[in-house]
Amino acid sequence: MIKKTLQLELGERSYPIHIGPGLLSHTALYEPAIRGRQVMVVSNDTVAPLYMDNVCDALQGYHLEQLVLPDGEQYKTLEVLNSIFDALLEKRFNRSCCLVALGGGVVGDMVGFAAASYQRGVDFIQIPTTLLAQVDSSVGGKTGVNHPLGKNMIGAFHQPRVVLADTQTLNTLDDRQLSAGIAEIIKYGLIEDYAFFEWLEANMTHLLERNTAALVYAIEHSCRCKAEIVAADERESGKRALLNLGHTFGHAIETGMGYGNWLHGEAVAAGMAMAADLSARHGWMSAADVTRIRALLTKARLPVDPPDDISRERFLELMAVDKKAMDDGLRLILLDAIGAAKITADYNAGQLAETLSQRLPLTGS
Amino acid sequence: MIKKTLQLELGERSYPIHIGPGLLSHTALYEPAIRGRQVMVVSNDTVAPLYMDNVCDALQGYHLEQLVLPDGEQYKTLEVLNSIFDALLEKRFNRSCCLVALGGGVVGDMVGFAAASYQRGVDFIQIPTTLLAQVDSSVGGKTGVNHPLGKNMIGAFHQPRVVLADTQTLNTLDDRQLSAGIAEIIKYGLIEDYAFFEWLEANMTHLLERNTAALVYAIEHSCRCKAEIVAADERESGKRALLNLGHTFGHAIETGMGYGNWLHGEAVAAGMAMAADLSARHGWMSAADVTRIRALLTKARLPVDPPDDISRERFLELMAVDKKAMDDGLRLILLDAIGAAKITADYNAGQLAETLSQRLPLTGS
Repeated sequence: MIKKTLQLELGERSYPIHIGPGLLSHTALYEPAIRGRQVMVVSNDTVAPLYMDNVCDALQGYHLEQLVLPDGEQYKTLEVLNSIFDALLEKRFNRSCCLVALGGGVVGDMVGFAAASYQRGVDFIQIPTTLLAQVDSSVGGKTGVNHPLGKNMIGAFHQPRVVLADTQTLNTLDDRQLSAGIAEIIKYGLIEDYAFFEWLEANMTHLLERNTAALVYAIEHSCRCKAEIVAADERESGKRALLNLGHTFGHAIETGMGYGNWLHGEAVAAGMAMAADLSARHGWMSAADVTRIRALLTKARLPVDPPDDISRERFLELMAVDKKAMDDGLRLILLDAIGAAKITADYNAGQLAETLSQRLPLTGS
Repeated sequence: MIKKTLQLELGERSYPIHIGPGLLSHTALYEPAIRGRQVMVVSNDTVAPLYMDNVCDALQGYHLEQLVLPDGEQYKTLEVLNSIFDALLEKRFNRSCCLVALGGGVVGDMVGFAAASYQRGVDFIQIPTTLLAQVDSSVGGKTGVNHPLGKNMIGAFHQPRVVLADTQTLNTLDDRQLSAGIAEIIKYGLIEDYAFFEWLEANMTHLLERNTAALVYAIEHSCRCKAEIVAADERESGKRALLNLGHTFGHAIETGMGYGNWLHGEAVAAGMAMAADLSARHGWMSAADVTRIRALLTKARLPVDPPDDISRERFLELMAVDKKAMDDGLRLILLDAIGAAKITADYNAGQLAETLSQRLPLTGS
């Protein structure tokens, strides 16, 4: 079995992240993470037909239950969360039970929050089946649901007991979802790893072709980058905020367009291009670097401009609701260079307005 | 100002509990607990008319919002919880905001869970206005809401930043609520403090007359007892379970009768009498001690027998849903003597059935 393993070090909440093809069929990877006998596998109606049977086969020694939720960001709500509690209580699941989140980021966030809250906290296992979830939402313990007035506004920090990032599940992902995941991979290069950004420029074609070796490398590298940042700042008081590069703009796009119309990774891609644009307007990064970032995002088949439908005023309003932005002044994650992000409130409001108004990239120099 | 202060030691989550008359008007007691400027005082429609103005006067230096919820255990639901999130988001409350829970255990549990979950965790202050909440639910960080299939099944461990137990608020409590609080006070004597049990036998009349000195003594002693147990076992893996004396029986009564028909303290009182009865049936405690326990509960105007409406079979079914009971085998908190409780699964099922069936107390010896 091809398998890379990272250990996320968080004291008594430490856990391993396994990466490789076919991992979800390996019983031995689950066993150390399950303390009791009751296991509920929760998935959605897109992923369940593809992988539920394989997961259940691997777990056949347990008292096993299945729950299938509707697929989509619009179902990441308190109401659907409550249907997980309904199932757990109807099946009389106890405090030593374990939930398995089989699906993308929505399933992972929601099942993770269900595990955080059921009887004030039970175990859970993440099996992220999208590239985005494998490199982002499955690492770091953020769980939660959306509220009509803002994304991820209700939730908890709750670490999984193990993450199985099975690269075979990426073969059934549509191209748009694959690209959305690549957006977050590019993010790690932009934040703090220029060499990785160069590797991505050289290997983007292999990633888009779903070459296993390239995917395992990119996922492992991304998870390692995120794991290091999270281990240094589990509860997001400092450095962890860098991971939000592109996200304040991106969340505004997602909310403004209605959940589910833009994929999260697509909104983040446009948001990163906007962050680069704003950084260049301040003279922090060169216009050439902005062009290079836009080129890589475009090569990955990602959007680099926000939708026309959101006015500048509406955009600012949506950004002010973002929780990273609401603390005194709107702090943003901006760039000094490719591979050098920073958290700052020291930007010019007029230039922010220009970034929000102008749909055309900054050119020149 | 008459004030006793206990410090609950939980590392970085340590907090003070202040006890005394008139405390909720003292701005200086709030200030160390509030990190930002945004404060939302959440209360219910019984308590708000009595104390909301006083609390808001004390906090007038802050950006202040008020929220009033319907009063009653039947409103301790995910839906009402969501109305707190609605208010916080409509008012654009940020992560450095602070919630103030002004009310009994329902308000405290629900606002505490809202604080645990809003943006993955914000600060909160507890102002318990019932005796029950002052000696029980405001200490220890358990927060949550009910589910139709079980009490407190959805929640989090989240510690307040400060607790203000204002004994003046007990003057507006009706007699039934006062007695329900005394049930939990008696519990601490039963669990591990024979001398306190004796003090209660001698001073029950003063407590029922709402003598300030007697109330402050009983509340402080109860909080200290609970604080010591919680500090030793914050997440309820061992000793903390002793605090559930009477609660497995009691929760079954509350659920079986429908939330709100029996007060929590009343159900716990009957539950403690049942625990004593079952303990005596095993020969662990004397029938004389059972009589003495029933006498003290009766003096406190509390029920000592479960309602006739719940059959033995239904009772067992309800107990099996209780989360303390669902882990392998139904563990119960039983008594070796007054002041000596124990956690055990080593009891006889037939004798449990007798305790559940027989509405008359065990007599004799």
